[in-house]
Amino acid sequence: MIMNYAELEEQIRQKRSFLCVGLDADEEKLPRCLLGEEDPVFTFNRAIVESTAPFAVAYKLNAAFYECRGAAGWRSMERTVEYIKENYPGAFVIADAKRGDIGNTAGMYARAFLDNMAFDAITVAPYMGEDSVTPFTRRAGKWVILLALTSNKGAFDFQFMEEGGEKLYERVLRVSSRWGDARDMMYVVGATKAGMLSGIRAIVPDHFLLVPGVGAQGGCLEEVARHGMNDHCGLLVNSSRGIIFADSTEHFARGAMQEARALQREMEALLAAYPFA
Amino acid sequence: MIMNYAELEEQIRQKRSFLCVGLDADEEKLPRCLLGEEDPVFTFNRAIVESTAPFAVAYKLNAAFYECRGAAGWRSMERTVEYIKENYPGAFVIADAKRGDIGNTAGMYARAFLDNMAFDAITVAPYMGEDSVTPFTRRAGKWVILLALTSNKGAFDFQFMEEGGEKLYERVLRVSSRWGDARDMMYVVGATKAGMLSGIRAIVPDHFLLVPGVGAQGGCLEEVARHGMNDHCGLLVNSSRGIIFADSTEHFARGAMQEARALQREMEALLAAYPFA
Repeated sequence: MIMNYAELEEQIRQKRSFLCVGLDADEEKLPRCLLGEEDPVFTFNRAIVESTAPFAVAYKLNAAFYECRGAAGWRSMERTVEYIKENYPGAFVIADAKRGDIGNTAGMYARAFLDNMAFDAITVAPYMGEDSVTPFTRRAGKWVILLALTSNKGAFDFQFMEEGGEKLYERVLRVSSRWGDARDMMYVVGATKAGMLSGIRAIVPDHFLLVPGVGAQGGCLEEVARHGMNDHCGLLVNSSRGIIFADSTEHFARGAMQEARALQREMEALLAAYPFA
Repeated sequence: MIMNYAELEEQIRQKRSFLCVGLDADEEKLPRCLLGEEDPVFTFNRAIVESTAPFAVAYKLNAAFYECRGAAGWRSMERTVEYIKENYPGAFVIADAKRGDIGNTAGMYARAFLDNMAFDAITVAPYMGEDSVTPFTRRAGKWVILLALTSNKGAFDFQFMEEGGEKLYERVLRVSSRWGDARDMMYVVGATKAGMLSGIRAIVPDHFLLVPGVGAQGGCLEEVARHGMNDHCGLLVNSSRGIIFADSTEHFARGAMQEARALQREMEALLAAYPFA
């Protein structure tokens, strides 16, 4: 099943949630009870997805956590996506791969993540410009999520460079929004810079924003909703460690469920309070 | 075996070459005679490396060409690196992965490519700034190769943004050169913009530059050497398709050897003509 704009909005409406759960399954942090499993990372992910699915509309797999285990890790990633799309076809599944390369090579990455695996979306870095991004767009029901303003300290090194009153991240938004549209493109905007979301909404009023950095990195959910929500919601807010490693015992799935439910309840209130209502 | 600055320079001196062969082993372009092999991509790479090793100081594997075949492709990449480092320990092996993510996640990518696999270097995108780059530096004998000025058309979208007389790619060079030094950092500079190499050398006189875009993309080797060579050579010039797919028959390895040798001879003449001599 593919996920277009209206279907994603409908999922948000049904679940009263715009939560994305980050499956950053660092093998060293897995509950010890899983270590005897044939593929502990997949078993962990499956249990997390089962317990959080009622409260989340999206799942995000950061490729680094899988690649660091080589071909076996890649297989865990493939199995996880397959499992989610088979059992929860309404879930939006994101490859947080931050790829970026020229034309035909970008096409290979698109094939790897959007064709061979059933990811709905892939994160991409904008540095190399249009021909590194468009190979990911215009695939029915598939999305590119472009890095705009990231949540880390290093964001200040280049993203705020300014020419003619326009910062680099603003130029990325303005220029790239012509390469696709709100139906095949989203943007990464860090929650730690939620105050800048109003300015971002002036440039891309309709696009969905994928917002990491709530929780462990200190971003505030209420502020994200206040400045960033549009009347289609237009937000996917990610939490990784705060959910998946909430409990390190054999009750890890219950711990994750409780955290996801708590965030869903906050989101339900925010959806009622802001323009989506 | 690790490769420090002096060892890399010594390889260049011995082989009178600064050629990097790009192992972009697109499965669809492999000679038909290999299709019965258990791992055609690995068999192809091994034959290409065997035949070009006397003429090349470096090999570059673009990760996209391996990832598009999933876990099996990842395994071909692992086997290729392992094969090169075991049989040609003097070869410098680059993961052209263009990764870029924050701190702990960047550390996972470093582990995947520089620890678990024996790559000497990995290409990284600069958009996310310092904390996305330094996890790759300060590993004895390992290198990060940062995208500065790329060879594609999309390079003009953001890399030439200007503030205070300084373009984005120049700022990337100036600012990032403080995060490491010429012993653990290199830069990607496209051969199609060879005229800008003099300006780049004014910012980073000592760093090695990895220069793609000679051959298929139209860059000129003589111009790259004239503007970019320093007295340690300081250049690795990559050619991919022009070498590895020079001959599509069962004589593919001989075809690759002839192309690599022709480039090595040009490079030998340039090394004698320019500051390295």
